[in-house]
Amino acid sequence: MSALRAIKDVVGPKGEIASDDAAPFLSEWRGRWPGEAAMIVCPASTEEVAKIVKICADHNIAITPQGGNTGLVGGQIPSGDEILLSLKRMRRIREIEPLNNTMTVDAGLTLAEAQEAAKEADRLFPLSIGSEGSCQIGGIISTNAGGVNVLRYGNTRDLVLGLEAVLPNGEILSSLKRLRKDNTGYDLKQLFIGGEGTLGIVTAAVLKLFPLPAEKVTVCAGVSSARDAVALLSYAQNETGGAATSFELMARICIDLVLKHIPDTRDPLGERHPFYVLMEFSSGQKTGLRSDIEDMLAGALEKGLIKDAVIAENEAQTQSLWRIRHSISEGINGEGLGARHDVSVATSDIPAFLEKAGAAVARLAPGARVVAFGHIGDGNVHYDVVGAEGGGPHALDDKRAKIESAVYDVIDSFNGSISAEHGVGRHRRDTLAKRKSEVELGMMRAIKNALDPNGIMNPGKMI
Amino acid sequence: MSALRAIKDVVGPKGEIASDDAAPFLSEWRGRWPGEAAMIVCPASTEEVAKIVKICADHNIAITPQGGNTGLVGGQIPSGDEILLSLKRMRRIREIEPLNNTMTVDAGLTLAEAQEAAKEADRLFPLSIGSEGSCQIGGIISTNAGGVNVLRYGNTRDLVLGLEAVLPNGEILSSLKRLRKDNTGYDLKQLFIGGEGTLGIVTAAVLKLFPLPAEKVTVCAGVSSARDAVALLSYAQNETGGAATSFELMARICIDLVLKHIPDTRDPLGERHPFYVLMEFSSGQKTGLRSDIEDMLAGALEKGLIKDAVIAENEAQTQSLWRIRHSISEGINGEGLGARHDVSVATSDIPAFLEKAGAAVARLAPGARVVAFGHIGDGNVHYDVVGAEGGGPHALDDKRAKIESAVYDVIDSFNGSISAEHGVGRHRRDTLAKRKSEVELGMMRAIKNALDPNGIMNPGKMI
Repeated sequence: MSALRAIKDVVGPKGEIASDDAAPFLSEWRGRWPGEAAMIVCPASTEEVAKIVKICADHNIAITPQGGNTGLVGGQIPSGDEILLSLKRMRRIREIEPLNNTMTVDAGLTLAEAQEAAKEADRLFPLSIGSEGSCQIGGIISTNAGGVNVLRYGNTRDLVLGLEAVLPNGEILSSLKRLRKDNTGYDLKQLFIGGEGTLGIVTAAVLKLFPLPAEKVTVCAGVSSARDAVALLSYAQNETGGAATSFELMARICIDLVLKHIPDTRDPLGERHPFYVLMEFSSGQKTGLRSDIEDMLAGALEKGLIKDAVIAENEAQTQSLWRIRHSISEGINGEGLGARHDVSVATSDIPAFLEKAGAAVARLAPGARVVAFGHIGDGNVHYDVVGAEGGGPHALDDKRAKIESAVYDVIDSFNGSISAEHGVGRHRRDTLAKRKSEVELGMMRAIKNALDPNGIMNPGKMI
Repeated sequence: MSALRAIKDVVGPKGEIASDDAAPFLSEWRGRWPGEAAMIVCPASTEEVAKIVKICADHNIAITPQGGNTGLVGGQIPSGDEILLSLKRMRRIREIEPLNNTMTVDAGLTLAEAQEAAKEADRLFPLSIGSEGSCQIGGIISTNAGGVNVLRYGNTRDLVLGLEAVLPNGEILSSLKRLRKDNTGYDLKQLFIGGEGTLGIVTAAVLKLFPLPAEKVTVCAGVSSARDAVALLSYAQNETGGAATSFELMARICIDLVLKHIPDTRDPLGERHPFYVLMEFSSGQKTGLRSDIEDMLAGALEKGLIKDAVIAENEAQTQSLWRIRHSISEGINGEGLGARHDVSVATSDIPAFLEKAGAAVARLAPGARVVAFGHIGDGNVHYDVVGAEGGGPHALDDKRAKIESAVYDVIDSFNGSISAEHGVGRHRRDTLAKRKSEVELGMMRAIKNALDPNGIMNPGKMI
C-alpha cells in the first residue's frame, strides 16, 4: 500500500519497528487488551509526526499514539489496522529556564527524566506516579495523570503552560508559550490534556517548575474511621497552612495484604487501627515545619482524631512507610483479580461513600473484602474488591460486572467520577457512554467531529 | 415581536429593565463602547436563563451576557439588537463545604461577597482584583480573571472545579462537580473559562477554597533594574520556598505619578530608585516567616539585588504600600489617555522586553513616557505610554495605533501574549485575528461553529 510506504519513507529505517520487535508495543504490562496494528512507527521529530498524520488523513488511516505504554485503561493499544505511533524517540529537553520556572520538553521524555532535569536546575517538577520511570510526558498530558502530590501541586493539567500538538489534519498547533497569563481566546491546550489522543498527538510541552522544598516531614497515623481521617486532613491543613503534599488513606486490610504478600515489610504502628493515614508535609521555610507538625499531631491526639502516630526520623523510615503505600496494588494482586475502581467524590463525602458502597458490595458478594485506599486529599479512592479469604483468585469473576455497576451507581449518587485519574480508554468507554449526561456527551461529540471529522485519531477510545 | 414578549413572560416584571434604567448596563465605566440592546433582562434562575436562550435560539436572536460590567475590553456590551442578559439577580451561595474546601455559588455573586463567605467559613478564596466589589463570579470565569495573587494561587481557571452553563441551544450543562480529580472525557468547563460568553452563559460554579494564611509579610524594595527585580523574585522564592503571593514591579515614574495625582500618598523609601518591587509573602506556618524574610532581604542586599527595603510593621503600613500600587492607573489617568497594554512574556524575558519595547516607543514618539508596572511574578506587565511632560492629555492620540502595533510586535518576538488578563472582547478582536496563528484561529472557529452554529452567543466579541 502506497500510504504505508510513504510513512516508511518519512521515518526511515530507524523509525520503523519490525514485527519481531512489535510485542512490547501491542500489549500492556498486565496483558489485557492485546493489540494489533498495521504498522508501528517511531518518528524522530514533530515534523515527521505531522507528515505521518497528513498521509493518514489523506488516506483515512487511523492512528493510535503511544507514550510509555503504562496506561491502565487500554487507551494506548490499537485494535486493528491503525498505525501505532510511538513518541519514544522524541526525548529532547528543549529548554530549562529556572528564572521563569519552566521547562520545555519533547513528548517522549520520561517523567523520571523530567523530574531529574528539573532537580539539576535546582527546581521541582512535582508530578509523581508509580510508573514514572517509563511513562512519558505526552502520555501524562494525554491522560491528565494525577498521583501522590496532587493535593499541593494539582494534576498534570495544572502543570502545563504550553503545548505543541499535531492535529488530525496534519497541521501543527504550535503553542509552546511559557506564560502564566494569556487571555487570548479559547484555551485550546486544555482539549489535549486528558484528551487521550482522540483530538491529536501531543509532541512537546512547556511545564511549570517550583522551588525545591527545604524541609519535609512524613507521618503515619492510625485513625478510628474514615470520618476521622477526613477531619484530620482539614485540621492538619489548617494548623500547617496547607503544608500537606500527600494525604493517603489506607484501610487496615491494605496493611494486612502488604504484610502477607510483600517481603521485608512491617506494621507501621504497634497496634492495629481500622484506618491509617500516610501524610507528607513540606515547606520552603528552613525551620519550623517539624515543630508545627508535632504540635498538630499532639492536638489531633487530644481531640481523638488520631490514636497513634509515628514521624519518620530519617530517609530510610520515610521510604519504609511509603513502601507500604506503594505495595498495596501488588498486595491486592496476591489475592486475585477482584473488581477494581478508580473513583472520586468530594473529600467530605468519602466516609458516606465508603459506607454506602460497602453495603452494596456486601449485598452482592457476601464475604468479599473491600480494599480501599487512595489520595483522599483529592477525594480519590482506589476502591478494590477481592473475594472472601481463601476463595481463590477468581472468586469474584462472575460478579465483577455487577459489583462495578453497583459501585458506579453509588458514585453517581454522590455526583462523583467513575474515573478519577486513570482515564477512560477502551476499558470504560461503554460505561462512560451510559453514565455521562447526554448534554456532556453531545458537547464531546460536537468537539470531536469538529476537529477530527473522519475519526482517525485513536478510534475506539474514550468517545 | 412575539419572541421578546415570550422572554418578558419568562422573567416577569422584576426581571425586565425599563429603558430609563438601561444606561448603567449599556455603557462601561470609562464610557468607551457605548452599547445598544433590543432588551435587557435579569433572569432569577438557571432555568429562566435556559428558557430565554431557547427562545433566542429558536428565533435567531443574539445574546450578550453581562456580569458586573467591569470588563476592560467591551466584551460585556451589546452593540445592536442583542438581548442583554444580566446575571445580577442570581446571587445565591448554594453551598460551602469547609471539609472539602469548596464553595458552590451562582454566577451573579460578586467576588467580594464570595471572598467574604469563604472567610466566614474560615477559608480563603484567593482571587483578588481591583473591581472585586462589583465584578461577578460568572464574569471572572468568562474572562479568566487574574489579579495580584496569581503567583501563588493561579488565575480563575485554576480555581474552578465545576461549572453550570447554558449552551447556545438552551440546554443546561450541569457539571457542578466538587471533585479535584475527574478524568472522564474532555474537560468541557475549560471552554467557558476565558470563553468571554461566546459559547454559552455561565450560571454557577464550584470554586476551590484554601486554608487562611497564618502569617503575612509585606515588603517594598528599591532595585536598580528590572533585571535585578527578576533575579530577586527567583532568589526570594528559593529562600522562602515559594512563599511569595504577590510580586509587583513599579518603575519609578509610577511612584511619581501617584505622588503627583493622588492625595495622601508618600514615597515608600528615603531615596529614589529606578524600580520598586512590592512583595507580599504568606505562610500557613505560625512562626518563622518574618525571620526568613529578614534573612532573605539581608542576603539580597549583600548580593546587590536590592538597594533598600522596608517591611510593613502593621496593617496601616501594609495598606499604605498597596495604596501606591493600586493608585497607579488613576495616576496615569491624570496624564491623559496614552496607549495602554496588558501584555505578558516569560518572567525571565521581562528585562529584554522592557528594553526593546522602550526603544520602539522612543522611535515612534520621542519624549513619551513609559509607565511600566505589573505582576511580574506572572510575567504580566501593564505597559502604558503617556505623552511627554506637559503635552496634554491628547498628546499621543495620533500615535496610539502605531505605538500599540509596535509594542505588540515586540510581544510577538518574545512569543508573549497581547492580552495577559483583560481578555479580547471588542477591543482586541481585530488585533487577535491578525496576530494569532491560522492554526489556532482555525481551531477556535471550528469549536465556535460546532457549539454555536448560528453565532448567537455574544457576537462581535473575541472571535
